[in-house]
Amino acid sequence: MIVVMRAGCSQDEIHGVVKRIEELGLKGHISQGIEHTVIGVLGQPLPELRDRLELLPGVEEVFAVSKPYKLASREFHPLNTVVTVNDLAIGGDEVVIMAGPCAVESEEQLLTTAHAVKAAGANILRGGAFKPSTSPYHFRGLGEEGLRLLAKAREETAMPVITEVMTPTDVELVASYADILQIGARNMQNFTLLDEVGKTKKPVMLKRGLSSTIQEWLLAAEYILAQGNEQVILCERGIRTFETYTRNTMDISAIPIIKKLSHLPIIADPSHATGKWYLVSPLALAALAAGADGLMIEVHPNPDLALKDGAQSLTFDNFQRLTSQLTLLVEATGRRLAVSGAKVRA
Amino acid sequence: MIVVMRAGCSQDEIHGVVKRIEELGLKGHISQGIEHTVIGVLGQPLPELRDRLELLPGVEEVFAVSKPYKLASREFHPLNTVVTVNDLAIGGDEVVIMAGPCAVESEEQLLTTAHAVKAAGANILRGGAFKPSTSPYHFRGLGEEGLRLLAKAREETAMPVITEVMTPTDVELVASYADILQIGARNMQNFTLLDEVGKTKKPVMLKRGLSSTIQEWLLAAEYILAQGNEQVILCERGIRTFETYTRNTMDISAIPIIKKLSHLPIIADPSHATGKWYLVSPLALAALAAGADGLMIEVHPNPDLALKDGAQSLTFDNFQRLTSQLTLLVEATGRRLAVSGAKVRA
Amino acid sequence: MIVVMRAGCSQDEIHGVVKRIEELGLKGHISQGIEHTVIGVLGQPLPELRDRLELLPGVEEVFAVSKPYKLASREFHPLNTVVTVNDLAIGGDEVVIMAGPCAVESEEQLLTTAHAVKAAGANILRGGAFKPSTSPYHFRGLGEEGLRLLAKAREETAMPVITEVMTPTDVELVASYADILQIGARNMQNFTLLDEVGKTKKPVMLKRGLSSTIQEWLLAAEYILAQGNEQVILCERGIRTFETYTRNTMDISAIPIIKKLSHLPIIADPSHATGKWYLVSPLALAALAAGADGLMIEVHPNPDLALKDGAQSLTFDNFQRLTSQLTLLVEATGRRLAVSGAKVRA
Amino acid sequence: MIVVMRAGCSQDEIHGVVKRIEELGLKGHISQGIEHTVIGVLGQPLPELRDRLELLPGVEEVFAVSKPYKLASREFHPLNTVVTVNDLAIGGDEVVIMAGPCAVESEEQLLTTAHAVKAAGANILRGGAFKPSTSPYHFRGLGEEGLRLLAKAREETAMPVITEVMTPTDVELVASYADILQIGARNMQNFTLLDEVGKTKKPVMLKRGLSSTIQEWLLAAEYILAQGNEQVILCERGIRTFETYTRNTMDISAIPIIKKLSHLPIIADPSHATGKWYLVSPLALAALAAGADGLMIEVHPNPDLALKDGAQSLTFDNFQRLTSQLTLLVEATGRRLAVSGAKVRA
Repeated sequence: MIVVMRAGCSQDEIHGVVKRIEELGLKGHISQGIEHTVIGVLGQPLPELRDRLELLPGVEEVFAVSKPYKLASREFHPLNTVVTVNDLAIGGDEVVIMAGPCAVESEEQLLTTAHAVKAAGANILRGGAFKPSTSPYHFRGLGEEGLRLLAKAREETAMPVITEVMTPTDVELVASYADILQIGARNMQNFTLLDEVGKTKKPVMLKRGLSSTIQEWLLAAEYILAQGNEQVILCERGIRTFETYTRNTMDISAIPIIKKLSHLPIIADPSHATGKWYLVSPLALAALAAGADGLMIEVHPNPDLALKDGAQSLTFDNFQRLTSQLTLLVEATGRRLAVSGAKVRA
Repeated sequence: MIVVMRAGCSQDEIHGVVKRIEELGLKGHISQGIEHTVIGVLGQPLPELRDRLELLPGVEEVFAVSKPYKLASREFHPLNTVVTVNDLAIGGDEVVIMAGPCAVESEEQLLTTAHAVKAAGANILRGGAFKPSTSPYHFRGLGEEGLRLLAKAREETAMPVITEVMTPTDVELVASYADILQIGARNMQNFTLLDEVGKTKKPVMLKRGLSSTIQEWLLAAEYILAQGNEQVILCERGIRTFETYTRNTMDISAIPIIKKLSHLPIIADPSHATGKWYLVSPLALAALAAGADGLMIEVHPNPDLALKDGAQSLTFDNFQRLTSQLTLLVEATGRRLAVSGAKVRA
Repeated sequence: MIVVMRAGCSQDEIHGVVKRIEELGLKGHISQGIEHTVIGVLGQPLPELRDRLELLPGVEEVFAVSKPYKLASREFHPLNTVVTVNDLAIGGDEVVIMAGPCAVESEEQLLTTAHAVKAAGANILRGGAFKPSTSPYHFRGLGEEGLRLLAKAREETAMPVITEVMTPTDVELVASYADILQIGARNMQNFTLLDEVGKTKKPVMLKRGLSSTIQEWLLAAEYILAQGNEQVILCERGIRTFETYTRNTMDISAIPIIKKLSHLPIIADPSHATGKWYLVSPLALAALAAGADGLMIEVHPNPDLALKDGAQSLTFDNFQRLTSQLTLLVEATGRRLAVSGAKVRA
Repeated sequence: MIVVMRAGCSQDEIHGVVKRIEELGLKGHISQGIEHTVIGVLGQPLPELRDRLELLPGVEEVFAVSKPYKLASREFHPLNTVVTVNDLAIGGDEVVIMAGPCAVESEEQLLTTAHAVKAAGANILRGGAFKPSTSPYHFRGLGEEGLRLLAKAREETAMPVITEVMTPTDVELVASYADILQIGARNMQNFTLLDEVGKTKKPVMLKRGLSSTIQEWLLAAEYILAQGNEQVILCERGIRTFETYTRNTMDISAIPIIKKLSHLPIIADPSHATGKWYLVSPLALAALAAGADGLMIEVHPNPDLALKDGAQSLTFDNFQRLTSQLTLLVEATGRRLAVSGAKVRA
């Protein structure tokens, strides 16, 4: 912490701040500038230290120097974390593709889609059994029946399965079916839920909150890591801005920023970020060009009949076209798409 | 719903849309404009109807005409809802003041504050026992011990108590102590939690999410109302914008907007909205001038020693000064401050 | 400036930074923390210093300590600036009301409105002769003819006139008619225009840009002040956020913040901030409760026939009702409304 | 326009709206829904029509159906506009690279940079002679001397030159030196300036404003087009959001959106969008992957000595590395980089 004193503050005020710093078991170090006196705080930073110092007489502003997250920081963990799911490695040299319907609607819808996305090159099957919905009157998912269908699709296609868990008491149930637990954007700061998934041994994909800063997002990951679960994957899915043409604004710069600040893998979800199917492919390509470790893409056999988020879902044909483009682009950047799990197993 | 067709779309496309509308059990009504054909959809709107129609060939855009919330809407419930807590009426002619520390820290801290805010005119005691915290390493509240202290403070001061519940499994516990359940901004779209508090008989104060639109906020209220709990109070506490001088930007216009769109009472929380104690009083006055039904204010005996949010807490003196100003302002607008519960009881 | 070095940076990197600081004629002062070394920069801050230091090897972050605006800052100018226009004082104990149509449309429209707003208590007449318009196909104002009508209305009502100037070459012309020059939100960073109005002797009202921070706004004021024109009035008129119910989001907290950081008067414009006439009165009351020095309100004889911004204009009746409410509220806060110029003169 | 009437409005209110529509020379077409009556407005939309109808008794909301821009719209101009500058085509099959220093600082700085970026594959030289600056005390450019140096660099390297014009009275001067006129983000709604560059015969690159929607941006382009200048290039350079890690948030989705809505070419400027040199390359790659017609990149011989925006400038080495990566990526997407003008000429 660095305490900047007000221009023209008194010696008593300066000493008052130093005294408080020392009472808290820390050390204060005074630098006299031309306009402002600055006091550096040495020692382990305490929670709420900033607020406590900012209120003292004569203080103008307090800056935090250390990053508030430790386990998520590349500073203390320089090498990339690679999360493994069966034979897939997320965060290594290969790019993974998660694809599937927004919501699991029926056995037929899920299985057809699972086979189609696998054939097109997807590695992991996505599908929501518990769905957050802005309105209480809309479809909220099939619940455990949806989980059973996901397990069936996994059996048929040998693709691991990722699905959302929305509330702490469902963690055990969802973890008993899923290969990767997904925390949705609206739950990024559902701290009890973060604690709970942190206690499992399952990989967790943590979506960025709609109005979450990069730092808050890494602190949310820190909650999971602090519980002993090191298998955390981040997912950029758009932030809320003034622009209304898209559902959200995809913050592509978050990808290289996360790569710089953290060792955790990062996935991009252009379906939720844009809300419009015809923007999914260009943004998917952009995310990989910017260095994302993978993609999550919504695919539906009949988007215009989907029970959830049809407008942002690709048809099978469009998804196939996208994976062809991705292959070329990823190779041009010196990486390659992961080979679909099943092929390896077969 | 209104479907706007693309300029120059074909007759087949127009008929395709009408056919789909009819397949869904609704009726389509064509108007031919100069540039665009427009199709009105008649009948009960279905979930995801917008997405489903927007994807049909020839469609340019789809507008929703009806409001998606019903129980929260003034359209179907013209008279103000008044939530009663003991002898206090929230949403009527009187203005209520909720005050107390951000977090319950100790018996002494809570009781001193409770007596002080009551003496200054507060009607309801606030204090967090379960605290959301951006970092896993910061103070997260005293838990049930905090609830017990709140109950003790209520006994001593006869003020009803409002406190936050953060997760569905805590609802029963918190409801057994609290007079009003608070849903925090980060949990505004924690739908399982909304369902759960909707099943209690306790009044619920629902804070607006950091990046929540007015419509999403009313839909979150709709979740609670749809479970049969009609005692919902809304609370504006600032939204996230590009401005960083304040913790959030208080959206004062939300107050008259809610009054127009909904029958539910609305409270303002200038402490969280601004994050700076010296902005709390001007914003508290502004919120009441704009028509808020009450205020929630953080007060602490020693803000510079607070375990949580000291920078935005008022001292006892500052809170006393604020309630004096409030009294004059509220009277000038033809209302009056509620008389503190205890005085009535005595 | 304070330079925070990366954890684990080398001694060479630290000395490199100090050396560069000294080459620039400044002094560097090293503090060794537990995780980070911090270097304070002493001496007059140079433009772009932050960028220049941030790029040196081993540097993590650079914080600015001094405020970048000087003439606009209360730090160096503790007493309130009071701008006088004829017998009106803006920024003193009295609250001023500027009112009139968005755009000057015709002699009849302007004169009727001028008389009506004066009768209701307005002190200054507003009206646009040069109008910014998002679309090139919409009404862009009557130009000099509009200025002549404003002069005529001033003659008839003895109210001073405020009107917008949009481009540097119009400054002389507009200044020859207007009593206060208005810089619109879109031109807040039209630096050539700021220079130009800074060279006149006329008071200037500077609206906050749609996405301007408080600091950028004060720096824009600094442009005008730096040219020798000390008669600057600020005007909060809403910022752009994700909320679309209102045209903009009025940042009421800007009012007490400006009062704290600067000595310049601040006016609130709830008409542009909300874009909806029924929100103008509650927000006008809120702005005064928060300490604004005055209001700017759009009034039109027939809002539903207005050539510009009818949706946010008050009718004469609604404006009259508002000024009655304002009088009571302002008195409750220990101030009073300015008496209309004409009455004083008579 | 579509007028949605309030639920339960009267027949008189409906007829009042239709009557007003007819008085304005348009036709109204009534559709009776279950909750709401909807009135379609047929005929050429008038400016301010929305405001005028929204104020009539019984009206709930008014939607605009037609797009407010015509000349910029792909609807009325399906084929891509290709802007030609000497032998370069912007908006065709080839990708162009504009590069150079933020500001022209000296002959040596500009010429060295010009030769370096050309050698690395740049096609167009950028460099500011007139610089917008948030603070009046910072470097504001060399003015005409800067323009002369740009002309000299063009002579030496045969690269066309792009440079910013900030105020209407400078348009003639700047146009006499520059090959492309640049309108900066802060001037996107400087309507007098837009008119003025619209009257020249020079290509104009229009940067998106910090808080400009896609629609407002296209309307700003419409100003230029409406003056008869069809040579308009758009440039995405980041929007203002709540995230403060980057200078702005680059809205990559704007690229495919512009391609869909408009026929105008679009360039991406990752230097201003991110404000950090180490984010420039990933975002440059992302922008091209998403379909941008070109890039604008800041390059400086010694970023840590730059007078302007050093933190976001690439060194010569980093720029060289970037163009190698770009070449591979662009080829993978089936396009190619334009060959530098000089080579063609030689």
